[in-house]
Amino acid sequence: MHTSQWIVAWVLLLQGCTAGRLQRDTSPRPDIRDCSTSPPYLPPTATETTARLAALRGAMQAHGIDAYIVPATDAHMLCPRLQSEYIAERDSRLGWVTGFTGSAGTAVVTLDKAALWTDSRYWTQAERQMDCNWELQRTTRIESIGLWILEAVPVGGNVSVDPFLFSIDTWSSYSEALHGSGRTLLAIETNLVDEVWGDQRPPAASSSIYSLSTEFTGSSWQEKVAGIRQQMEQHVQSPTAVLLSGLEETAWLFNLRGDDIPYNPVFYSYTLLTSSDIRLFVDETRLTAEARQSLQADCPGSLCVELLEYDQVRAHVHDYAQGNVTIWIGTEYTTYGLYSVIPQEKLLEDSYSPVMTAKAVKNAKEQELLRAAHVRDAVAVIQYLLWLEKMVPQGLVDEFSGARQVDALRWAQEHSRGPSFESISASGLNAALAHYSPSNVSSRKLSVDEMYLSDTGGQYLDGTTDITRTMHWGVPTPFQKEAYTRVLMGNIDLSRLIFPTNTAGRTVETFARQALWKVGLNYGHGTGHGIGNFLSVHEWPVGFQSSNIALTKGMFTSIEPGYYQDGEFGIRIEDIALVVEAQTEHQTGDEPFLTFEIVSLVPYDRNLIDVSLLSQEQIQYLNTYYETIRERVGPELQSQQLEEEYRWLQRNTEPFLQSSAGTAAAALGTLAITSLVSALLTKLQA
Amino acid sequence: MHTSQWIVAWVLLLQGCTAGRLQRDTSPRPDIRDCSTSPPYLPPTATETTARLAALRGAMQAHGIDAYIVPATDAHMLCPRLQSEYIAERDSRLGWVTGFTGSAGTAVVTLDKAALWTDSRYWTQAERQMDCNWELQRTTRIESIGLWILEAVPVGGNVSVDPFLFSIDTWSSYSEALHGSGRTLLAIETNLVDEVWGDQRPPAASSSIYSLSTEFTGSSWQEKVAGIRQQMEQHVQSPTAVLLSGLEETAWLFNLRGDDIPYNPVFYSYTLLTSSDIRLFVDETRLTAEARQSLQADCPGSLCVELLEYDQVRAHVHDYAQGNVTIWIGTEYTTYGLYSVIPQEKLLEDSYSPVMTAKAVKNAKEQELLRAAHVRDAVAVIQYLLWLEKMVPQGLVDEFSGARQVDALRWAQEHSRGPSFESISASGLNAALAHYSPSNVSSRKLSVDEMYLSDTGGQYLDGTTDITRTMHWGVPTPFQKEAYTRVLMGNIDLSRLIFPTNTAGRTVETFARQALWKVGLNYGHGTGHGIGNFLSVHEWPVGFQSSNIALTKGMFTSIEPGYYQDGEFGIRIEDIALVVEAQTEHQTGDEPFLTFEIVSLVPYDRNLIDVSLLSQEQIQYLNTYYETIRERVGPELQSQQLEEEYRWLQRNTEPFLQSSAGTAAAALGTLAITSLVSALLTKLQA
Repeated sequence: MHTSQWIVAWVLLLQGCTAGRLQRDTSPRPDIRDCSTSPPYLPPTATETTARLAALRGAMQAHGIDAYIVPATDAHMLCPRLQSEYIAERDSRLGWVTGFTGSAGTAVVTLDKAALWTDSRYWTQAERQMDCNWELQRTTRIESIGLWILEAVPVGGNVSVDPFLFSIDTWSSYSEALHGSGRTLLAIETNLVDEVWGDQRPPAASSSIYSLSTEFTGSSWQEKVAGIRQQMEQHVQSPTAVLLSGLEETAWLFNLRGDDIPYNPVFYSYTLLTSSDIRLFVDETRLTAEARQSLQADCPGSLCVELLEYDQVRAHVHDYAQGNVTIWIGTEYTTYGLYSVIPQEKLLEDSYSPVMTAKAVKNAKEQELLRAAHVRDAVAVIQYLLWLEKMVPQGLVDEFSGARQVDALRWAQEHSRGPSFESISASGLNAALAHYSPSNVSSRKLSVDEMYLSDTGGQYLDGTTDITRTMHWGVPTPFQKEAYTRVLMGNIDLSRLIFPTNTAGRTVETFARQALWKVGLNYGHGTGHGIGNFLSVHEWPVGFQSSNIALTKGMFTSIEPGYYQDGEFGIRIEDIALVVEAQTEHQTGDEPFLTFEIVSLVPYDRNLIDVSLLSQEQIQYLNTYYETIRERVGPELQSQQLEEEYRWLQRNTEPFLQSSAGTAAAALGTLAITSLVSALLTKLQA
Repeated sequence: MHTSQWIVAWVLLLQGCTAGRLQRDTSPRPDIRDCSTSPPYLPPTATETTARLAALRGAMQAHGIDAYIVPATDAHMLCPRLQSEYIAERDSRLGWVTGFTGSAGTAVVTLDKAALWTDSRYWTQAERQMDCNWELQRTTRIESIGLWILEAVPVGGNVSVDPFLFSIDTWSSYSEALHGSGRTLLAIETNLVDEVWGDQRPPAASSSIYSLSTEFTGSSWQEKVAGIRQQMEQHVQSPTAVLLSGLEETAWLFNLRGDDIPYNPVFYSYTLLTSSDIRLFVDETRLTAEARQSLQADCPGSLCVELLEYDQVRAHVHDYAQGNVTIWIGTEYTTYGLYSVIPQEKLLEDSYSPVMTAKAVKNAKEQELLRAAHVRDAVAVIQYLLWLEKMVPQGLVDEFSGARQVDALRWAQEHSRGPSFESISASGLNAALAHYSPSNVSSRKLSVDEMYLSDTGGQYLDGTTDITRTMHWGVPTPFQKEAYTRVLMGNIDLSRLIFPTNTAGRTVETFARQALWKVGLNYGHGTGHGIGNFLSVHEWPVGFQSSNIALTKGMFTSIEPGYYQDGEFGIRIEDIALVVEAQTEHQTGDEPFLTFEIVSLVPYDRNLIDVSLLSQEQIQYLNTYYETIRERVGPELQSQQLEEEYRWLQRNTEPFLQSSAGTAAAALGTLAITSLVSALLTKLQA
């Protein structure tokens, strides 16, 4: 899956700077809104926010607050550093107060001003959605927000936030921006937007929280808890507890799932796991009887899960922190609200909790589950590709209907729980946009004259998938073919790389770029991300970014190089890869070297591959991969009685011959001539 | 050049952890010393330190100090993060007080205990050099030092350091280690070791500080100052001054050189460059008349260099910082002593000062100078290789005499100013040691039965060089040949890489490892470092480490992959490369893509190359490089009337044919057979 957040994150990491740098180069356009006329010109898509703002300002005055900061995040920060790409409607406070529904942004409201900061992906959307109460600030730098606040709020004023919506780092940045300025940064636990949102706010989730059947879990939750407790015991700082704020941490640890967040089968919760007991903060009325039974079968005792109200987490952590304890947290996604109740000397801070890092390494059973999910997922994608081949030439598919088709095909597969993210279905120039999903309203028709990019994934009880294929059903230009082939070469070069264990992804992702770089091409996003077992499609901390942990055996990551030609076309080729031991002749160090095993099993578009660019080794790799696809997906297609798809698969996984410039072809030539010589000699001798 | 510090730095960066991790895997050996007997057993190389320690403890008591920390650094931290690999004798306080003369380590002395912390490279050396007054701590983690101090110093005690010998980061680490423990970290400006070292301490340098002739400089110092002032003006934080602590910063800025530090043509100094004036803190009696004239030709005015005593820097910076000023510093190498006199709000902190980053990018003239120095350097190295070829089989060379020979050959070249670091000359198993230089006392004989590694460099008025070649004059084993060839493939793969401008070196250095990784091999040090123009052979902040700045056109870096087989042999192939624009068919982004031009011009050992492992592209690259060597070095050899060397060069730069598995060979075969067919047909027709 490609998400635009990755682009921003990647560019920021590349530049080692704040978001501001990114936008400096983007030339400003006039705002779509015209707030200088009376009445102002607003697009029909704008939301009227005057009453909402008046109510919020009333609440601010009641609390003695001069500026209130509203972020786009919720309290759990799914996918840290990606600014909560998915949150529940109920948590979309920024959207309600501003009208702007993009996934990244920050609003600040003072008693007489209001402004929204967001990045270039969202400028147009913000102008279309916001009314004239709102300034649009075209940057996301906290320094910029800080300077704006210093101008808008007099010395002695209070700047306030809900500390449960701010990461430790973000809080520090605001604190630094206001430091010594005479303005106070205040944490107020009552969320003022919620207060004025009132009855209109969507209700809390009430759907069931259920246990995964043991056929879909890698270990029992008791085994997982024992493993985490062992890590606690072995740690030099002897932590007495681990505090879990990540929704995917609690879901993974207890083998529970819910559906509180779109596309992510998780539920609102916190966990405080100590050496002697386990406290799960959750709406216990939502647990199925089976789930409750699973959690409390061993009560009382150290493997008894005590169920407490979700809202009680702060008070319980506060009380627990009074004792002689050390609490282990993952600082990347713990909010300042929870962090600040624990005295500094009682904290053990790591970027990621031991649950997050344990979850990142899949055991043999989990690997088999993910592999199996990918076989059925390949069936759905192959069905889709064949359907496109037949329908596109007839002009019967647009981006939106295509996305619906692939979603439906996935739903029909066993154990399906729907898509793992909003399907990206982009034709022609739309595929060059970083952030594109079609809608019912505006959707481009697919055509044999354009390239088409499909980035989709599924949730299955046994695993999460994510795959991108780019196609052309007509005659691609030589440049399109070259670019596609070079993206493919990058995918292959990284996939077949052999590397030492504990290599940082950041240091090897350039292998996915080398073939493009060679002719002056590149792409502006990251090369991959971790993925869960029926959990988040973007699962940190695995991947190829600086902030990712080193690669070890058993991790899954996407590999997704691309190329984007503005206003023309976009290419991305994405597969999910498992980190496995490599077979090497020698070995330096104590651990075997590693490589990738591709578990996505869908062939690439032959129409776009220029075989003459591929090296002999790349062709060999590709042919071996295609054999694997045939072996694994062929039988599944047959058992699902998809004979036409089976034949399509056979056609599309024919081995590639070496290019004419390649050795094998030359050798074949030599062979032919040798035969000829031999014949001639025979003739001469005759 | 290969230095062991790189290994440590690299491993630490790789593991993202402190030095402790590195050593945990190294199994402990019994100490060479036996301090349990009476009298203790000490090797004859140990230094008697009882009197020195008694004197130091007397000074400590006089100052009310319970523990005194003595680092291996001086006040200028040449090569930040490399722990001052070269310092003057006068600054070797650690060596004097402990007896241990290694380049990395920390000593702590309390009133009744004394201990040295150093890393695994130096354990044996420390045991050989220290007497029983000293414990050896086999780690360099500041946490370990902190814990030791907490045990040795009672609550309420004072722990003291000379703040001019501690970087900002190191001071913070000690401060953190002692925080809340009831012990106080005290900065005392009088250095207690110097106080007790007294008359025995080597005198301050007194040799001349001279101006470089304009034929050897890229710009006048006035132009450089103007460039830095322009950067100051354009900076959003409007710094009013730049404070230079790095000796190479001041030397570069004013086109001055000295010889205060072995192998590094720099001199003790600080510079405070403000928007209106320039203060150079230096022993002005050492300036040549010409140098003084150059600095003061434009006095008075903003391009007049005011000369002040070296020791006055602290007082002057303190006074300057009282005004409405902002002082720009490079935090990687500014000491806590200077840093702490500037109020926090008046600091502009970057890892490297604008002088350091400006120096990293060489202009066209500087590039030409460095290129020219490398041509003459190649002559000396080629003379050495030919000499070895003749002398080694006769058993007439050992490591030490080899090192002396190459040093002498360099000295004979025009503009030579001697070696740029202590020559590494290592035969057989010695080359597998990370840190090896031969001595007159122990030196292995070179033999046709062993591999030999020579890592040497020169200082020339027009540039600094650094090159490593590995040789075998007999019959290498198949594994040696494979390992050598793969190291060479790594060197080639990185050298010919095309990449976008501003790519971080850390993300591409893996191309130098890929060929080794493929068969399970690797090396445990960094892949390269920047290099100066008649300045430091290790010039930060260019290179392939995480802490290096991104690669841009005009930077020079070494490229030096290797392979080390413990107890058997060591391979390293090192060249200096200039970052140049690449010619690409397309271009993504506003800036041309980049690649490397290799300026080291010495062929590799053909006896160790297995051509069948090389790809067609690697062979083409190698042949093109060899053509360049012939073009650039051939005429110089002839003009120096080195006819035998000229013939050697021709022999050793013959183009390589494609391997038998390669396309060209196959094509040649085809051609031959085609000719044959043609002949046969003619015969048949006849």
